[in-house]
Order: sequence, then structure tokens, then C-alpha cells
Amino acid sequence: MSKISKNNYKLTISYDGSRYYGWEHQPDKDTIQGKLESVISKLTGTETEVIGAGRTDAGVHAKGMVANAVITTDMSEQLLKEQINRYLPDDISVTDLKIAGERFHARYKAVGKTYRYTCYYGENKPVFDRKYLYRLDLEPDLEKMIKAAEYLTGEHDYASFCSNPKMKKSTVRIVDKIDIKKKSGYITFTYHGTGFLQHMVRILTGTLLEVGYGKRTPESIPALIDAKDRKLAGFTAPAQGLCLISVDYN
Amino acid sequence: MSKISKNNYKLTISYDGSRYYGWEHQPDKDTIQGKLESVISKLTGTETEVIGAGRTDAGVHAKGMVANAVITTDMSEQLLKEQINRYLPDDISVTDLKIAGERFHARYKAVGKTYRYTCYYGENKPVFDRKYLYRLDLEPDLEKMIKAAEYLTGEHDYASFCSNPKMKKSTVRIVDKIDIKKKSGYITFTYHGTGFLQHMVRILTGTLLEVGYGKRTPESIPALIDAKDRKLAGFTAPAQGLCLISVDYN
Repeated sequence: MSKISKNNYKLTISYDGSRYYGWEHQPDKDTIQGKLESVISKLTGTETEVIGAGRTDAGVHAKGMVANAVITTDMSEQLLKEQINRYLPDDISVTDLKIAGERFHARYKAVGKTYRYTCYYGENKPVFDRKYLYRLDLEPDLEKMIKAAEYLTGEHDYASFCSNPKMKKSTVRIVDKIDIKKKSGYITFTYHGTGFLQHMVRILTGTLLEVGYGKRTPESIPALIDAKDRKLAGFTAPAQGLCLISVDYN
Repeated sequence: MSKISKNNYKLTISYDGSRYYGWEHQPDKDTIQGKLESVISKLTGTETEVIGAGRTDAGVHAKGMVANAVITTDMSEQLLKEQINRYLPDDISVTDLKIAGERFHARYKAVGKTYRYTCYYGENKPVFDRKYLYRLDLEPDLEKMIKAAEYLTGEHDYASFCSNPKMKKSTVRIVDKIDIKKKSGYITFTYHGTGFLQHMVRILTGTLLEVGYGKRTPESIPALIDAKDRKLAGFTAPAQGLCLISVDYN
């Protein structure tokens, strides 16, 4: 029998967030963190905490969420990953699991994140990926949105794009990329930045869509940023179109 | 107001079959045909029958099912398609709708069909397309399956691959292509033929997988065909991996 040891693991996790109340554990509700902690705790017989790089909202998906957890086990990395996946529901998958340094912390050590928001506007109703996109009734103007995205990129105080009015910490973030693409009806917004405030990606997307619909101009964006007022920004795009793609570490 | 007229329409339909009891209408059960007939009948105020190219089983999906229906309406093709899609549930979509000749019949005029069966064997548990594939616990040998598929291709009496023991009509069919491919864990079986018997694609797939697992040899296939005995063939692969890709007409 292998020796039992206690290590800090780095986990990469993919999930369909449709039926979950978000990442963070909540009593009596299905959450991704809750499922992971319950599976790992049962598997190892030791109460285990799983620390995510961030908290995704209810209904938001992830292809590459990263988490860390101190796990006590005699299993190899490969076997541990297999066993966790065996007991996790079909809509959550650990795609990578490795022993990390003791000091690795999925949230504090994260230096960047990539999110993708997927919309669909087109003749055909998408069937197979319908739960991973937001269907638009109007066709947004791509050029206008790309122009507005330039104003939204950079180092700014994004208070206008934060749904938490009681945010006490700094609301300054760097968003170094907002890439907007259209392909066979799918309109994707890919965001990369140092970090994102509560609902920020969804509010940025809602604001960009309003620019695309002609409800506001690209040139109105600098004043919106300066205002630091959530009420002046666009709507919060629905959760189901959002996916956390990856988290960067040094 | 446009003139009301009665025409025979050709419809192409895409659906996620997960929650349906198959194509064919059944009292008190959700079926694809049932949904389409109910939506079109309500929309036009005229009881409408929708004739499919074939009947997919419960849980089977389609990207390109074809159907025809005599519809009485004053709507243009474009508007009719939009309205049908508006009232259909999210998991059924009419991707094309055109007036066809009076004599067009989706079932009788079909000259070929393409089905794809998707399996997955690999390290990572697929999350986003989990409902459209069959996950394997063992890795099948691709070369052996390709060899066996050669024996299964051609014009044969496929009685061994038909789940209906009371089939009175001919069980001779031509399957001119069984294409087996593997890519990043996904193993797909693409079948093209003049027509397929009940459960035939799923039984062919189950039989090919048993060859891949080493439970039977490619060389045992000719005797299996000759036996004309369902009990000697492989298991019926689960419905969720199967998708009707397209239907051919002259």
C-alpha cells in the first residue's frame, strides 16, 4: 500500500453551470465548489476545502476554472483524478490534477483570466449548444462594438461595470483584450484581464450590445467609465452565455 | 393580406432528442413529430400531419431530419419558418423550409441516409457535449473495427442487425459507407446507406465495438450476417450517441 501523504494540489475544472447556484458553496444548494468538496472529502475521509480562482455566478460555465486543495491521500495524481471524476456528476469534470507547491493559492496567485461570452444571431435556432449561448433578437453592429471595446480596454476604474454597490476594495482593473468575432451567426466576446469585478464581464457585454444596437455610441464610453455609476452602464447579459476559459499563473 | 394557399412543404429539422420519446407521435408523450404537428396545427388553424423520412428512437438526435407537410397558410416560407421556430421548444429547430412539389414524400422519396454514432474514450470526462455521446470504459482497437466495417459494408440481408423479430418486409439493405475515425478521444462511426432497419445503426455500432474490444474478430462478421439472427450480433449501443445527419433525395 502506498504511503498516505498530504499535499497541495492544483486542479483544473470544466463544468456546465446550467443547473448550479454558481461556484461558491451554499447550504442546501447545488454548487460546483460544494460538489467538489463533498466528493473529495468522502473519497479521502478528510474534510477538504477547495479554493477556486474566483466565484462564477449561477448558470455560468467554465472550461478552465483553476482551484487548489490540500488533500490527504495515498492515491497517485492519475488515480485521484480518475476517482474524483467517477464520483462527480456528469456536468463537472476535473481535466487536470497535479501536486503544486505548498504556497500555491488558486485565488491569490492568479495573475489573469480569460472569459468568453457567446451570443447567437441568425436564421437558425441553435439546438445542441443552446444552453451555452445568449440568443439575440436584433443584429448588433460589429464595427461599433469593436470601436467601443477599444475604449473599454486598458487600466480603468470599472466601478460602472460592477454590480456590487458596497464594493470597498479598489475597482481598478486592467483589461488588456476584448476580442469580438462573428462566425456563422455566433458572436463571441473574449475578455482577458488581471481580474474582473462582480458581473463585470456580463455588464461589459450588455453595454457593448447596446452600442451594437445603436442605443449608445462608442464615443459615449469614456464618460460612462468616468461616471463610476452602475446605473449608467448597460444591462447584465444573461449568465448562460458566459464561460471562464482559463486562469493565468506565473 | 396575402392569399391563403395550401402547399406541400419540405422541412429540415434539427433536434436534441434527449427528453423525447422519439420521432413518432404517441398519446400523452413528448415526441418530435407530435411537437411539430401541434405547433403547425395551432399556427395555421388546420390539423396538419408531418411525415418524417424515418422514425428516430427515444433519445436519438438529428441534425438534418427531413419531413414533409401539407400546410394551409398565407405566410411566406421565411415567415412560416420563423413562426414555427418561435413556438417550438428550444431543443427542436426547423433549419430549412421550402415549398416542394405535390408529390414530394419525405419517407417514400428518400434514397439514402447518413447517421453518425459518437463515442468517447479518453482521460477527460466531456462536459459540454455529454448528452450527445456514449462514453466507453475500454479503448476499442480502431484497426480491427475498420476491418470489420469492411465486411459489414455492401448489399446484405441485415436481419442479424434488426431488433424487430416480426419484420415481414425485406431486411436487405445497401450500406455503402461505414467510416470510423478517432480524434482527441472522440470515436465516430459514420454510416451511409439506402435505409436502416430498426435499431440497425446502434446494433452495428455495438457489434463493431465488440470487435474493437476483442470479443469477436473481424473475420467472424460474414458468418454473423449469414446467420440472420439478432441474438448473435452485438449489443445495442445507447441512443444518446446517435444522430441522423442527413437524408438524400434525387
